[in-house]
Amino acid sequence: MKKERIVIALGGNAIQSGDATAEAQQEALKLTAKQLIEIIKLGYQVAITHGNGPQVGNILLQQINSDSNQTPAMPLDTCGAMSEGMIGYWLDNEIDVVLNKHKIDKDVVAIVTRVEVDPDDQAFKNPSKPIGPFYTEEEAKRQMEETGAVFIEDAGRGWRRVVPSPTPISILEHRVIKNLVDNGNIVISAGGGGIPVYRKDGELIGVEAVIDKDYASEKLGELIDADILMILTGVDHVFVNYNQPNQQAIEEISVEEMKKYMKEGQFARGSMLPKVEAAVQFVESKPGRKAIITSLERAIDAISGKCGTRIIL
Amino acid sequence: MKKERIVIALGGNAIQSGDATAEAQQEALKLTAKQLIEIIKLGYQVAITHGNGPQVGNILLQQINSDSNQTPAMPLDTCGAMSEGMIGYWLDNEIDVVLNKHKIDKDVVAIVTRVEVDPDDQAFKNPSKPIGPFYTEEEAKRQMEETGAVFIEDAGRGWRRVVPSPTPISILEHRVIKNLVDNGNIVISAGGGGIPVYRKDGELIGVEAVIDKDYASEKLGELIDADILMILTGVDHVFVNYNQPNQQAIEEISVEEMKKYMKEGQFARGSMLPKVEAAVQFVESKPGRKAIITSLERAIDAISGKCGTRIIL
Repeated sequence: MKKERIVIALGGNAIQSGDATAEAQQEALKLTAKQLIEIIKLGYQVAITHGNGPQVGNILLQQINSDSNQTPAMPLDTCGAMSEGMIGYWLDNEIDVVLNKHKIDKDVVAIVTRVEVDPDDQAFKNPSKPIGPFYTEEEAKRQMEETGAVFIEDAGRGWRRVVPSPTPISILEHRVIKNLVDNGNIVISAGGGGIPVYRKDGELIGVEAVIDKDYASEKLGELIDADILMILTGVDHVFVNYNQPNQQAIEEISVEEMKKYMKEGQFARGSMLPKVEAAVQFVESKPGRKAIITSLERAIDAISGKCGTRIIL
Repeated sequence: MKKERIVIALGGNAIQSGDATAEAQQEALKLTAKQLIEIIKLGYQVAITHGNGPQVGNILLQQINSDSNQTPAMPLDTCGAMSEGMIGYWLDNEIDVVLNKHKIDKDVVAIVTRVEVDPDDQAFKNPSKPIGPFYTEEEAKRQMEETGAVFIEDAGRGWRRVVPSPTPISILEHRVIKNLVDNGNIVISAGGGGIPVYRKDGELIGVEAVIDKDYASEKLGELIDADILMILTGVDHVFVNYNQPNQQAIEEISVEEMKKYMKEGQFARGSMLPKVEAAVQFVESKPGRKAIITSLERAIDAISGKCGTRIIL
């Protein structure tokens, strides 16, 4: 039987839950790697993606707080690249350790990943993703005038910069990633949704934007011809009527039914909705593909159909 | 004829020469990419390595200046990983652009690279590589007591932290890098000499150390079976009697002669000496291998033997 190929998208909680030190994040990734090795042991070809929300937020803060002629603040695309290096390195180490422990002769490798976006994407006209620290109205307006960055008032908590969240149209490293996965390597890529770039007049231009890591993972799954997209998050299942008395876990579900729930507004924007959208898009992209949304702790049970929300055609 | 494989080690001046903004560094890399494409056009299989001195220095400064509970300073190994993401991303873009311009259907990819060192390396007993900002004696001594880090008085300019510079014994991603180069991809790896790690009791432990990027490039060349190691630096040639009236450029030279000059103390420690040592070691590692030391601007001339210092067996 052909080995099935899986894209596993790690949520933020797989890396950082509170303590932002390198030690604590590496410790969290040890537990993550222990779950991942169980999937690797089943013989799947594995590509891993991950979020970078807290990490890139902290890198941005550090850039802003120490901005000077000597150490000028780096733009958001470069900060994203830094976070890919950092988290990729940590994940590399911990997966390497469990591969060795289980005597599995595979390599793990983290790829600096750029994701192509369309400069005419509507998202650029409507920056909506808040990043970085809160500012006073005065400071925010000063920065808006000086830099052209967009700030909005955020629910009474102060002013905050917002950036566009465009749709990924391609992953520049996808042929390389597919080649590596074909050869049995475990590939970490599209960290934080990838670094957004677009082409213009023969140049490649990085943009200060954030790509949703679930959409980027979906795109990666299509481009490397994966069979399964597994999105790991803080809950074991997707729920209907979430947090209400009649809350119900979704187990196996068709794309058609899922779309009905989406229309009803069952899933929270910026939280469960992008995961469900990415899952549906992946399943619809080619017959035989399925998507799973579950928690890191239940990932192995979800693969065998014992837990999690499984979306099929 | 079999395609020759070359490892090109970019010096710091290929990325940053003064202005530390992202824009200026990306602009410098545009020029670098224009030189590299001329080598790629000749049909060589190309692996690229690069320094990260100024960049990781700045990342360290930013970490120190904004150290807090919310944004704790990352250790040096993690800072190195961040610099690999950052520089790898920039180089990716600029090489991508010239490949497109010249209609060469190859992919370029930056690999987060870890380099294995020996925890019993003598370098750990004698930290010698200065990093980060200058401190007063009082502050340096306080940090030494609190963190165990080593500081030394640096030529009257103040106290500065020093870290070990161990010898690279392996590159953890070397099989992946070889696989990618075999398939015609242009691979950027071992940035800043790679992230130093060692194995202990089944764990992989990152260390606060700096690996010389020329030694790491040499090791990479051996591991991916390269034919040529090309070290690019600020001068067109290696010189004997450098900066003296009888200064003389070295053109083609045997390993034996070069060793004689090394013994005479012709080459500056921490500057030309490690380049010459890496070149000699590479040439001696297997018959048929050669090394070239020259400037970025003369790289293409040096390949055809018209310039540069060429070290042969």
